[in-house]
Amino acid sequence: MQIFTTHNREAIAAWGEIVLLENIAQWLKTFPRVARPTPRGMGDDCAVLPVFGNFSGDAAMRLVTTDSVVFGKHFDAGVPARAAGAKLIRRNTSDIAAMGGVPADAVLALIMGGNVAQDWLKDFYAGACEACDALGIELAGGDVSSGPESFFSATLALTGFAERPLLRTGARVGDLIFVTGTLGGSILKKHYAFTPRIAEGRLLASFPAGAVTACIDITDGLKKDLPALFPAGTHGDLDLSAIPISEDAHALGGNLTERAFCDGEDYELLFCLAPEFESELRSCWQIAFPSVRLTRIGKIAAGAQPGVPAFRNAYEHFKS
Amino acid sequence: MQIFTTHNREAIAAWGEIVLLENIAQWLKTFPRVARPTPRGMGDDCAVLPVFGNFSGDAAMRLVTTDSVVFGKHFDAGVPARAAGAKLIRRNTSDIAAMGGVPADAVLALIMGGNVAQDWLKDFYAGACEACDALGIELAGGDVSSGPESFFSATLALTGFAERPLLRTGARVGDLIFVTGTLGGSILKKHYAFTPRIAEGRLLASFPAGAVTACIDITDGLKKDLPALFPAGTHGDLDLSAIPISEDAHALGGNLTERAFCDGEDYELLFCLAPEFESELRSCWQIAFPSVRLTRIGKIAAGAQPGVPAFRNAYEHFKS
Repeated sequence: MQIFTTHNREAIAAWGEIVLLENIAQWLKTFPRVARPTPRGMGDDCAVLPVFGNFSGDAAMRLVTTDSVVFGKHFDAGVPARAAGAKLIRRNTSDIAAMGGVPADAVLALIMGGNVAQDWLKDFYAGACEACDALGIELAGGDVSSGPESFFSATLALTGFAERPLLRTGARVGDLIFVTGTLGGSILKKHYAFTPRIAEGRLLASFPAGAVTACIDITDGLKKDLPALFPAGTHGDLDLSAIPISEDAHALGGNLTERAFCDGEDYELLFCLAPEFESELRSCWQIAFPSVRLTRIGKIAAGAQPGVPAFRNAYEHFKS
Repeated sequence: MQIFTTHNREAIAAWGEIVLLENIAQWLKTFPRVARPTPRGMGDDCAVLPVFGNFSGDAAMRLVTTDSVVFGKHFDAGVPARAAGAKLIRRNTSDIAAMGGVPADAVLALIMGGNVAQDWLKDFYAGACEACDALGIELAGGDVSSGPESFFSATLALTGFAERPLLRTGARVGDLIFVTGTLGGSILKKHYAFTPRIAEGRLLASFPAGAVTACIDITDGLKKDLPALFPAGTHGDLDLSAIPISEDAHALGGNLTERAFCDGEDYELLFCLAPEFESELRSCWQIAFPSVRLTRIGKIAAGAQPGVPAFRNAYEHFKS
């Protein structure tokens, strides 16, 4: 199914805003755990939510993140509508996972041209709702605005909770650098078909203070995201042969290490660990996530020399 | 200053994403109450916020709303950049006000073409930050994504808190219908230069349960927003001569009552009140908001006949 249609009767413009909102409400109704009745769900000026959402732990902090998917940038005609909707939910959730938090609820704002196909949009919502359902997220409300023809963007703002969030800052010289899963080649499928590492992030956040000293999720690629964990005057002393390369990177071929560093959209967790906790982490990991690879790829070292090979640049918005 | 530039050196594409984000961080720094250091502000995977934000009351509920401004739809080249930024903050805040809540913190997602002018964007942020500062809102984070040339959208997700939110549902036959301020003609200026009725909403929410039975803010116009307050099988018995017409509606001329019903973007509060509380409300209002007009425009009556004259339709996205 194509995202934009030239058949006027099949376009959202044929509905107008009021019928569109009625249809969205109808689509959401098939996901009772995701979309609650007003005012907890759509239908009032704001979503009215419990202060702690659906979080059942001892939340000390509220986490908020926002991310968009834009047609032609974050997905294209080769990505099914359901997958595009799921990607929006997952990439926001990955940010909550990187802080060791649990996602709770979200609002969804669409900006789109009148020629978006009704059926495509229905599938986009189905994909978003299925992903929310799987991740325990409530879709609490949103907004629709009209944009130029053949334009589609969806922006999610996601709230989560954490007892003690994992920050990007806090690594120290001597800390070990770990990464979950495998890297590179996400363009084949993983960029929309991945599971955010919520449970893994929760395990990391459950370690004593000072154990996991920094954490980030890999969105732009190891090359750009890894240095975000280095305190000033330090670098990463990396074992390039240890970098876990994905099967899709192998399938694509080329310089595989470069793929692992630069392809991006891996949505894996990258974190620093005080070395005295390594054996404990490995033991817990083996029990909790036996099928999720955990790889030590290096350590934080003193000195400001670049610890990352001079590959091509990671993706950067706006730069042509 | 124009929003889009043909001078490549003055466009955000000349910066690329990394420098753009550095500049945004720099702009925000001049508003220390609005933008806090990471991780409370931008710089990590999520904003890390206190569970209750900056709210100092006894919050029972968390409110979340999202709204966008799109160039060419919600503002055009005639609206200064600062005013466009302020409008985004204010229109979201108006939704919190309509629930009787207090705004706390927000995340801001931009989607824009590479030809957006650097200076225009700087002013957009200045306007957004000034509005946040005035309204006690913390700008906790955001996202930038590239979109088509000559496209600009900004989507805010705003969190607030309330002890007992005012809903749209709850009016009963016999309740009086009130509106704050004056209506119509917002296109001249008010659509971006208005003060969200937070304090007024707080007063309404502070009345005993069952006093203010329903509330909404007027965004699409009285014609479309008023019926949202009518329970099934009721209508509004309106005194059309009482509708408060704005000076700008008078300046524009035409059918002034139609302007008041259909122009929209008034961002005034429209609410229903149990009649036994009318004198108490008027007394409190006179003390708290002596310069804000409060007008009784009718009451909720039994029967489903339309209580709204057959004017032109209110604005509807997507309908051409």
